[in-house]
Amino acid sequence: MDNAELRTRVGAAHLLASYQYFADSGRLGPLVELFLPDAVFRINDDTNVGRDAIEAYFRSAGESFRGVDILPGRHHLSSIYVDPRAEGGAATYACFQYIGIRGLDHWGTYRDEVVEVDGTWRFARRRVTVEGFAANSPLAPVALRGPGA
Amino acid sequence: MDNAELRTRVGAAHLLASYQYFADSGRLGPLVELFLPDAVFRINDDTNVGRDAIEAYFRSAGESFRGVDILPGRHHLSSIYVDPRAEGGAATYACFQYIGIRGLDHWGTYRDEVVEVDGTWRFARRRVTVEGFAANSPLAPVALRGPGA
Amino acid sequence: MDNAELRTRVGAAHLLASYQYFADSGRLGPLVELFLPDAVFRINDDTNVGRDAIEAYFRSAGESFRGVDILPGRHHLSSIYVDPRAEGGAATYACFQYIGIRGLDHWGTYRDEVVEVDGTWRFARRRVTVEGFAANSPLAPVALRGPGA
Repeated sequence: MDNAELRTRVGAAHLLASYQYFADSGRLGPLVELFLPDAVFRINDDTNVGRDAIEAYFRSAGESFRGVDILPGRHHLSSIYVDPRAEGGAATYACFQYIGIRGLDHWGTYRDEVVEVDGTWRFARRRVTVEGFAANSPLAPVALRGPGA
Repeated sequence: MDNAELRTRVGAAHLLASYQYFADSGRLGPLVELFLPDAVFRINDDTNVGRDAIEAYFRSAGESFRGVDILPGRHHLSSIYVDPRAEGGAATYACFQYIGIRGLDHWGTYRDEVVEVDGTWRFARRRVTVEGFAANSPLAPVALRGPGA
Repeated sequence: MDNAELRTRVGAAHLLASYQYFADSGRLGPLVELFLPDAVFRINDDTNVGRDAIEAYFRSAGESFRGVDILPGRHHLSSIYVDPRAEGGAATYACFQYIGIRGLDHWGTYRDEVVEVDGTWRFARRRVTVEGFAANSPLAPVALRGPGA
């Protein structure tokens, strides 16, 4: 492993951890700056392009979390896999769990394209796939909660 | 920490993450190539020696997962501890959880001997210990499921 | 990322993983040596200063775990975020889950100040915040378990 690969692996993993840290500590400014100005951020079928749209998404998500009985909660980031690109940058894959006040609430994956700009790693593309919700999740889509939920 | 130790820590952690990524995305070829040709792969009391036996194990495990109501699912890899050996290579320890469609299904540890061959890290030995199953796990050994299960 | 930052990120993450490994394998001596002689170790409102007090805490915690029906169990460490200090050392943040014999038992965060002394990273301060317990946790504080528990 040469020095460039070493830096890519450590730098990309740090970017992914920073996202979790800023998201869970409510630091919206630094969180949005992890994305390139023209980044594409997808959560399941919802696509947000550019920092303004991404910030609006995070504001809305934050309200959803604060509007139900789930906090304090944390995103547990694991299985970080970094695949450096020959032309620079890297593709990444990782898993997450969201643990709220009652325990595991929902979970899924991140698939990203990340690049280094002036010594700082940023998301060019991030795709979040929520793969499941706990039976008692207050954040589960209405369609998943069944009649009367 | 000298350069050799730095590369060992990052390289060994990458090997462990690669296993998770290839296993959960069904990439059997690259998964088996993570092992040395004469590697020893143990899961609890089941020992598989060499790539053919290891591939057969993964094929069988994949069928078990696809045969029950558990997918999509992911191995969440955490607590990665790397202990470099003076003579080269490293011993590693890590924890995993398998999160399936209903949430946490089973969990345990990895204990490995890993080596670098021509710049690529591989498993010389991997020992998987499954330490527990959720009460509703469809993958729990029959003996653990109780009468009628 | 320069070499000093690279070493700090990898070294601090290794310190955090070592804590988990030594704690879960019952290696009390090496666990206590991860702390500076005058380190401050807080768990929620309980503050322990210095290695003797920290060792006494771990002995007591170990007895608590062995005194209930929870083992084998593991601390799953995730979301490791390292923030290097200009003057040396780093602040860190990470999440953990404790998975015992019945699954997720309790969870929370670590917030640390870590320093490198003679090539080895150690905790100057560690603050553990347990943020939640599973409904059936045998380790939940009596006050959380409700009447009759």
